Amino acid sequence: MKKVLAINSGSSSFKYKLFALPEEKVLAEGIADRVGIDGSSFEIELANGEKHSEDVAIPDQETAVNLLLKALKQYHVVEDINEIVGVGHRIVAGGEDFTDSALIDKEKLQKIYDLKEYAPLHNPAEGKGIEAFMKLLPGVPEVGVFDTSFHQTLDPVHYMYSIPYHYYEKYGVRKYGAHGTSVRYIVGRAAEMLGKDAKDLKLIVCHLGSGASITAVKGGKSYDTSMGFTPLAGITMGTRSGDVDPSVLQYIMNKDHIDINEMIEILNDKSGLLGISEISSDMRDLENNSDKKADLARAIFVNRVRQYIGAYMVEMKGADAIIFTAGVGEHDSDIRENVMKSFEFIGLKPDLEANKTNGEKFITKPDSKIKALVIPTDEELMIERDVVRLAHLN
Amino acid sequence: MKKVLAINSGSSSFKYKLFALPEEKVLAEGIADRVGIDGSSFEIELANGEKHSEDVAIPDQETAVNLLLKALKQYHVVEDINEIVGVGHRIVAGGEDFTDSALIDKEKLQKIYDLKEYAPLHNPAEGKGIEAFMKLLPGVPEVGVFDTSFHQTLDPVHYMYSIPYHYYEKYGVRKYGAHGTSVRYIVGRAAEMLGKDAKDLKLIVCHLGSGASITAVKGGKSYDTSMGFTPLAGITMGTRSGDVDPSVLQYIMNKDHIDINEMIEILNDKSGLLGISEISSDMRDLENNSDKKADLARAIFVNRVRQYIGAYMVEMKGADAIIFTAGVGEHDSDIRENVMKSFEFIGLKPDLEANKTNGEKFITKPDSKIKALVIPTDEELMIERDVVRLAHLN
Repeated sequence: MKKVLAINSGSSSFKYKLFALPEEKVLAEGIADRVGIDGSSFEIELANGEKHSEDVAIPDQETAVNLLLKALKQYHVVEDINEIVGVGHRIVAGGEDFTDSALIDKEKLQKIYDLKEYAPLHNPAEGKGIEAFMKLLPGVPEVGVFDTSFHQTLDPVHYMYSIPYHYYEKYGVRKYGAHGTSVRYIVGRAAEMLGKDAKDLKLIVCHLGSGASITAVKGGKSYDTSMGFTPLAGITMGTRSGDVDPSVLQYIMNKDHIDINEMIEILNDKSGLLGISEISSDMRDLENNSDKKADLARAIFVNRVRQYIGAYMVEMKGADAIIFTAGVGEHDSDIRENVMKSFEFIGLKPDLEANKTNGEKFITKPDSKIKALVIPTDEELMIERDVVRLAHLN
Repeated sequence: MKKVLAINSGSSSFKYKLFALPEEKVLAEGIADRVGIDGSSFEIELANGEKHSEDVAIPDQETAVNLLLKALKQYHVVEDINEIVGVGHRIVAGGEDFTDSALIDKEKLQKIYDLKEYAPLHNPAEGKGIEAFMKLLPGVPEVGVFDTSFHQTLDPVHYMYSIPYHYYEKYGVRKYGAHGTSVRYIVGRAAEMLGKDAKDLKLIVCHLGSGASITAVKGGKSYDTSMGFTPLAGITMGTRSGDVDPSVLQYIMNKDHIDINEMIEILNDKSGLLGISEISSDMRDLENNSDKKADLARAIFVNRVRQYIGAYMVEMKGADAIIFTAGVGEHDSDIRENVMKSFEFIGLKPDLEANKTNGEKFITKPDSKIKALVIPTDEELMIERDVVRLAHLN
């Protein structure tokens, strides 16, 4: 039985899912955590719910891949390692080089490394992951699935910053966006649920997780998106600031005598919901919290979401549906309700009863002019499908 | 005959207008340019169109004020300097201290100086202007009219950044906005033209000059605005970038080995329309220009304007009217047309014939659900009226 691995790497971890073809059943999933850091561990969960984990030194990606392959055999998920006929890797930065997922050879691997300046923590780790698989599963196709490629359809009007043009020509400074794999999955599923071809739809996808973005999708293609040159821009996130007046950086840096790298670290790691609330980056910790700053953080989050939806609705001259996905989008009915209520004035009719519970569904009334939906995202499934498509496994 | 002076200072210049009370007739206007810089000059234009200018050393504000008072007598605009019964001064930064225009005494003057960190080039120069008048016209009331005070009605949801909360408590980092005096004038005039009380209106004011901002005005009060901690934020401007991903600063600074002050200078002085087009910061130079980057700059400008209008429409759950003002807003019919067309999908019906020419008017059809108007702004008139109101001159 043919199987495909989907790898979703962070800077020092990698999550994996093993799919059986052609039914796309998940046979095993888990994580190799704290790769290259003290206190690393390896976890696997089998299709029957059985879980195993061990604290084990994982100095590098190759060790992690070896542990994974060993565990798959040990727990009889595969009998022969050759059953794995393809491996897909989520890659954070694809720059302008990757407008679609791609089979990765030595040359393309080098390109992934070359793009490390756009994602210094991610691309090198992801590159090493690919190298490890190339070594341990020689001859098995490796596919790179880029967070940015779905957004390569943006027009310059939407991706260019209002800064000196040569920064684009010289350094590639422009909007690249992120969450493209998730949005791509959502668009396909939303079109099915709406019973229309994606080509005929204007959608606004709210990927609201600890990283969060809003994407306008017109005719199945990314039209504009809230993340920018990096995933720091756009709406308020768990620990990320999203948009701020650039002068704020200057003011704080001069006051506190910190440099730009320290400042950006604060905007990435200590800002967002955590920064405003001084309580938590996790939306669940801020719900029904009596602290006024918890309320403020949630209200600012909702406001940023509705601002971007409004802006993108105008850019596309309308929208057929707004879709909520990822942690907060899938599970926080109060946030969804507050966002939806902002659009009643242009004909969105929330179904508050439906919205109370989670799961894939419509959360607007049948006669709502603009629909709202909840769709749990599945990036790993998209990775698996890209492997099948590009390695011609079907 | 009582007269009131309105002073609109830049960092090294000041524009003035002398009004006759109570009819608010402009008796004289002009500029003292390059104060404290080589090549300074003084200009006056009389009500009959007569103009006089001289190249003269203007080392400081006091010299400028002396030149002005001398000219007013010389050209018989006033017979006695005591006819000037009040002076109003535009002040860029009022922080959270000034929620309205205010009579300026020694204590309040000190506050203006104390706020210099928010407007390092402007507040000190404006403070010196007030001091000069205090000295040369002793006993005449001086009124400060703050660019920021109209926006002090913003809710924390709209003025707080998603950064660590203590930056607000410690340093006052928040959104202050700008162009408040202009917006206040527009709101009054728009209410008159719409035949309604401002209290019952939701307005979106597009102040599109070389500095540009979008303000949402609900019930006569500023509800949200696109400029931020400083006037750098928001939409694309003549030379200012508006919003950018903060990571862009980090990337460019590390690449080019420049510090944050140099970077912010680039974002203030070499970005915006000038940066994108590499041609000009002046919208007129970009119109009907065959260069593709000129078109791009104009298209990006239009897009930023419509994004903010869309976002603010959603925040206010609707809008009665969109108003265009300031240089570009009052004179660039093509920009106005392109912005208006983005709102046809929610019932704005542009009157393209009316829009072809400039001047105060409606530029939507009578049955347009959302109206659009052009209203030439008049900040000096607002300054004069604040002097009359606060010094009880009527």
